[in-house]
Amino acid sequence: MKKVGIAILGLGVVGSGTYKILTEHRDFYKQVHGIDFKVENVLERNRARALSLGVAAENIASNMAEICSNSEVDIVVEVMGGVEPAKSFVLAALNAGKSVVTSNKELFCKYSHELEKAAKKNNCGLFFEASCVGGVPVIRTLLDNLQGNKITSMIGIINGTTNYILTKMSDCGASYEKILEEAQSLGYAEADPTADVEGFDAAYKLSILSSLAFHTKIPFSKVYREGITAIDPCDIEYGKKLGYVMKLLAVGKNSDSGIEVRVHPAFVNSSHPLAAVNDSFNAVYVTGDSVGDIMLYGRGAGALPTGSAIVGDIIYCATHDNFNYSTFNNTADADPATKFLTNYESAYYLRLDVDDKAGVLSKVTSVLSKHGISVARVIQEKQNEGSGVSLILITHCTHEKNTDKAVQEINKNGGFAKVVSVIRVV
Amino acid sequence: MKKVGIAILGLGVVGSGTYKILTEHRDFYKQVHGIDFKVENVLERNRARALSLGVAAENIASNMAEICSNSEVDIVVEVMGGVEPAKSFVLAALNAGKSVVTSNKELFCKYSHELEKAAKKNNCGLFFEASCVGGVPVIRTLLDNLQGNKITSMIGIINGTTNYILTKMSDCGASYEKILEEAQSLGYAEADPTADVEGFDAAYKLSILSSLAFHTKIPFSKVYREGITAIDPCDIEYGKKLGYVMKLLAVGKNSDSGIEVRVHPAFVNSSHPLAAVNDSFNAVYVTGDSVGDIMLYGRGAGALPTGSAIVGDIIYCATHDNFNYSTFNNTADADPATKFLTNYESAYYLRLDVDDKAGVLSKVTSVLSKHGISVARVIQEKQNEGSGVSLILITHCTHEKNTDKAVQEINKNGGFAKVVSVIRVV
Repeated sequence: MKKVGIAILGLGVVGSGTYKILTEHRDFYKQVHGIDFKVENVLERNRARALSLGVAAENIASNMAEICSNSEVDIVVEVMGGVEPAKSFVLAALNAGKSVVTSNKELFCKYSHELEKAAKKNNCGLFFEASCVGGVPVIRTLLDNLQGNKITSMIGIINGTTNYILTKMSDCGASYEKILEEAQSLGYAEADPTADVEGFDAAYKLSILSSLAFHTKIPFSKVYREGITAIDPCDIEYGKKLGYVMKLLAVGKNSDSGIEVRVHPAFVNSSHPLAAVNDSFNAVYVTGDSVGDIMLYGRGAGALPTGSAIVGDIIYCATHDNFNYSTFNNTADADPATKFLTNYESAYYLRLDVDDKAGVLSKVTSVLSKHGISVARVIQEKQNEGSGVSLILITHCTHEKNTDKAVQEINKNGGFAKVVSVIRVV
Repeated sequence: MKKVGIAILGLGVVGSGTYKILTEHRDFYKQVHGIDFKVENVLERNRARALSLGVAAENIASNMAEICSNSEVDIVVEVMGGVEPAKSFVLAALNAGKSVVTSNKELFCKYSHELEKAAKKNNCGLFFEASCVGGVPVIRTLLDNLQGNKITSMIGIINGTTNYILTKMSDCGASYEKILEEAQSLGYAEADPTADVEGFDAAYKLSILSSLAFHTKIPFSKVYREGITAIDPCDIEYGKKLGYVMKLLAVGKNSDSGIEVRVHPAFVNSSHPLAAVNDSFNAVYVTGDSVGDIMLYGRGAGALPTGSAIVGDIIYCATHDNFNYSTFNNTADADPATKFLTNYESAYYLRLDVDDKAGVLSKVTSVLSKHGISVARVIQEKQNEGSGVSLILITHCTHEKNTDKAVQEINKNGGFAKVVSVIRVV
């Protein structure tokens, strides 16, 4: 029976999940895949954690060099996260002739060109399904199913932490801060939640996914990014009344006029399949010129779902000889010929604090109209305290710059109205 | 630049879509895949159709032998449907050393063992993503993403025609016959709709998908099959009131006690992601022991979505050298060791016509209880005509045989109640 030796770098959440899946399914894989997958080494500073998972003491490597020189190791699984030392370790593994499976979105987003070069040079596999959206099979779908399509749009809910927070805020009306605290105590958010709540995590993933979807390098620096920390629960509430659900979306679009890639909170129509993606579930909604609309839905994080993606790549790597690369054109930067759009087109939700006086609505809409923005829906509601009222407008589709200018003009124009929330509607 | 020659057998809906995608994207594929995909031959009796699609007269083959001996043809696309002559043509292509991409679920379901044997012998690729659920990437997901999971459950809405009919029946309360007629006039149902409405199409697909998911041959003959022709719109209406949506489901389950595979109408809780899969959209909801729940959603039929799956396979075939087979254990029949369950477990919706008299509910529930069935919910409604009333019961989970016996006993028991509808609840 064919034997495939695995080394796992890092026994955190994903590393432990991967170890568990590989060891518990070892007989099952022998039976259905005819391959004996054996974890030959782990690299983990916390020896106690490794031992408590059941790793034999002699299989805990002291350093990366030991793994590189272990001829029993065929595939190295990098699940450490962060750029260094992960990058050096992955390059060392590839240069030692080992294939690599990684879940490291930051590393792959920033250095795929270097890693792919090393993989190619050494004729090794380099697999990264687990780097984006955990157990949701989006990378292989883009590479091996939709590769005959011109993909025009990709809209994803690709960060579990923020989707959990927004779902809970929507369910119980509590503030961002309160729900974040709860999420932290439940382990759904990190002690330092910045990477998730400020959209970095989603932006890394969008950079990787849109590079695959649009067949050209989309560097992280080109991804517009806006987090969820400023979301006011009252906007979620007003949105609900209008039939919208608030999500942190990763949006990639490709048209004749150019490419746009952006991560930001947005309202989604409640009839859209993405609106029903709740809690820590994730989904990616892709539109291709042949396939039409498809959606891939599942758990975007967690030990076992992400471990499932890692193990899927391990088995694929062990059963395929030729590996395809150069999906990123081997560059760190975008092709100079790629045109990136920044003046995004969308409908907008605007919430204004306005004086409760006749003529205010007319003044507001006249400023909007001056900037070419027409209004699709209006709600006006008395606020609980004070004499002001909230005016909610949903605009028709317009360009971001028009909205910015109109908002500036209203806010400058001497007090009859103040725009307090501007949220895109997808 | 690498050149890959294609022959398309049959220019029906899927064949025409495939031809269109390949010809319109030819430059795009040169640019992003570095391969020139050229349609070298078509096999189509209706020459006028071929010519009107833009096929050059000299590329219309007179017979299969011409295609087999054309050294410019590398990949043969079989989109004729039915067993013969498709089977002979596919075998001829493989024996001539051409790889094959097929959308033919009946052929693949019944003869995959023969086709895979021929493919292996000739070291050719044999791809069938398009045979199941059109543009929804379910086959490659099972093979290359979830292959490290023990898949415990797979629930699919995998026939577009029946989903369209059930969605419309639910929307407007019309009868099956009326909506079928409408669907036929719109081209969503065939003149002879048997394959779709009696569940054959879904059962072929379930046979293929469950063989992949459960790593053992699940022959068509083992798939329980029940169509939608007997569905009464009033049951859809009562179901709605109880928070259920009616779907034709393909269900595959695998547990320590055995495998069950079945296609039948069922009520789905309206909060389940499958409940929102409407019209001709399809979806497959898969549960694996590591990945948890994932759902793949999209268009399960149509020229371009199915063409997208075909072209995805063509590009995959052209960019990979080693092909994996034996997912079906090379047999026509199930492994004798496989245990198939038939006494399915589920909750049930029962509609009874009952006498409007005291004590009837108690008589009915006492028969159910005798057979170990407990009742979760009850609605009783006066019918429009006559003196009878409709009694709707939702049972807790029970075994099919218990339900059958209880229904028989109630219907035999002398007229106080008659069970008129029995529908599984998933």
